[in-house]
Amino acid sequence: MNEKLLALTTELIEKATDEEKETLHLLLQGFQRKQEQKNGSYIGALLHAEGEFKDNQFVLKIPNTPLIQNALDIVHGGITATMLDSAMGSVVHHLLPPEKAAVTTEIKVNYVAPGIGKELTCVASIIHHGSKTMVTEGKVFRDDGKLIAHSTASFFIIDRKQ
Amino acid sequence: MNEKLLALTTELIEKATDEEKETLHLLLQGFQRKQEQKNGSYIGALLHAEGEFKDNQFVLKIPNTPLIQNALDIVHGGITATMLDSAMGSVVHHLLPPEKAAVTTEIKVNYVAPGIGKELTCVASIIHHGSKTMVTEGKVFRDDGKLIAHSTASFFIIDRKQ
Amino acid sequence: MNEKLLALTTELIEKATDEEKETLHLLLQGFQRKQEQKNGSYIGALLHAEGEFKDNQFVLKIPNTPLIQNALDIVHGGITATMLDSAMGSVVHHLLPPEKAAVTTEIKVNYVAPGIGKELTCVASIIHHGSKTMVTEGKVFRDDGKLIAHSTASFFIIDRKQ
Amino acid sequence: MNEKLLALTTELIEKATDEEKETLHLLLQGFQRKQEQKNGSYIGALLHAEGEFKDNQFVLKIPNTPLIQNALDIVHGGITATMLDSAMGSVVHHLLPPEKAAVTTEIKVNYVAPGIGKELTCVASIIHHGSKTMVTEGKVFRDDGKLIAHSTASFFIIDRKQ
Repeated sequence: MNEKLLALTTELIEKATDEEKETLHLLLQGFQRKQEQKNGSYIGALLHAEGEFKDNQFVLKIPNTPLIQNALDIVHGGITATMLDSAMGSVVHHLLPPEKAAVTTEIKVNYVAPGIGKELTCVASIIHHGSKTMVTEGKVFRDDGKLIAHSTASFFIIDRKQ
Repeated sequence: MNEKLLALTTELIEKATDEEKETLHLLLQGFQRKQEQKNGSYIGALLHAEGEFKDNQFVLKIPNTPLIQNALDIVHGGITATMLDSAMGSVVHHLLPPEKAAVTTEIKVNYVAPGIGKELTCVASIIHHGSKTMVTEGKVFRDDGKLIAHSTASFFIIDRKQ
Repeated sequence: MNEKLLALTTELIEKATDEEKETLHLLLQGFQRKQEQKNGSYIGALLHAEGEFKDNQFVLKIPNTPLIQNALDIVHGGITATMLDSAMGSVVHHLLPPEKAAVTTEIKVNYVAPGIGKELTCVASIIHHGSKTMVTEGKVFRDDGKLIAHSTASFFIIDRKQ
Repeated sequence: MNEKLLALTTELIEKATDEEKETLHLLLQGFQRKQEQKNGSYIGALLHAEGEFKDNQFVLKIPNTPLIQNALDIVHGGITATMLDSAMGSVVHHLLPPEKAAVTTEIKVNYVAPGIGKELTCVASIIHHGSKTMVTEGKVFRDDGKLIAHSTASFFIIDRKQ
């Protein structure tokens, strides 16, 4: 397997443009983030996501790279939705006791401007904190401060499996 | 750069578990799909997405691998949303004349069962075909046939840039 | 009070156009439907709503009258949403055992054509039937068969108060 | 027709409980609000809606009466949606030039607490102000300050018919 992986990498490099090499580098660095447990999931790792809880909000940042763009060089709406789901889920989990977890039951996203620029920032906060459900709000901004997407989502609170 | 990429791959392999090696293989094969233009975007390529238009619906399939799972080994809701946005966007574009394109203005997803199994299949169809907007429906199924998510989305039709 | 009510009715009639008299008649007949328990709520009664469960769907019909139109003589989107919420709630309650009830936790409506014509028909069905939640779909049609709105909603199942 | 209307009113009064008489009074007063052009639509009039634009928000208030409650004496979700659609539509129209109008293309409402108390207040504001579309946020509060519903909606801007 080791040789197969190195052979495939070699083959990819040989055919790669300079931009493709940069992108492959990002991809391998993303994989490394998961291997080194900097991110809990491959998705967070490959997105190079960095998050923190601050002032009752969860703030998640990712660099804008070719990896997350559609054929028009604009951030894919699914990636924006992924950021929103992750950040809103994080703000919910931050407020739950250790024996509880939450699952997303629904999310709605309004896309209002194209995702361009160097970095995207997602800010998530709580709209309603119930005993069985939570409702959250999330916004995604470009580095020029422009809002690109607004979202609300519902979470159902469950007992964490022992 | 070529040497840096090979050195990083070597480093990742040395520390990798068997499962991580499988996942790295998937990732590199995904990159190759984009390089060989089997998919139009890195996202589609890394998801190993295969789509086709059939009976007025767009059907998109992806394998379920560790790459798309959250910390609980369940498909990340953002990936489900990405499949839905892609498949609904594809069914819309399929119906547009070549000089028109469409952008997603909003999407809502209801998550109704955990994403597990070997493969996910997304089926997208048209609810409303207007001259300026389209509204679509999308469903994601597991390989055991169970519905995991239902979605509706709106698209705004624009002139394709020349 | 009785005299005050009759005096007010007299005053309204004196100033009323023919169309306003028709509308007042509809309003009083709607009130009567509630008084005679033909509808369980004033809203259903004033809308002259008629519903039935048929082929696993709940079908709700209301006449289109000035009472439910906005300033442009088109059915108010809030009325369409009211029909959808009522019909989707009815299909859910139809499937619940007597000791359970359900509350709407979220609804999304896509409006796709203006509400005109003589009658509106709403058809509601189940997308997901879980033990704690249900997800439903609703569609509203004009009497010429054209779809005017599509909706999905979530319901949370609770114990009915004794 | 005049006699028929008075006869029907008399019949309703004769069978009415005290609470029903109060409700009939509200209904007739609501009709009067439309006749006197205090509200532009029967719906606004029958809801006894009072609105004003203030600090870039549109604030709409309605009294909570049996007219708007479901069988459980809680405000019907459709009425909450009607308030939200009206208030968000008003904030949009307030910002448009006289030759433009807007139609709701989609609305989502999250219901988070039961609608009880004496009065409901809806506050609507703008999330995104584009040239062809606007996205808005709306919240509905009880008189004890508790949020009962949160909503986002999209509006499509059209030329007003001459």
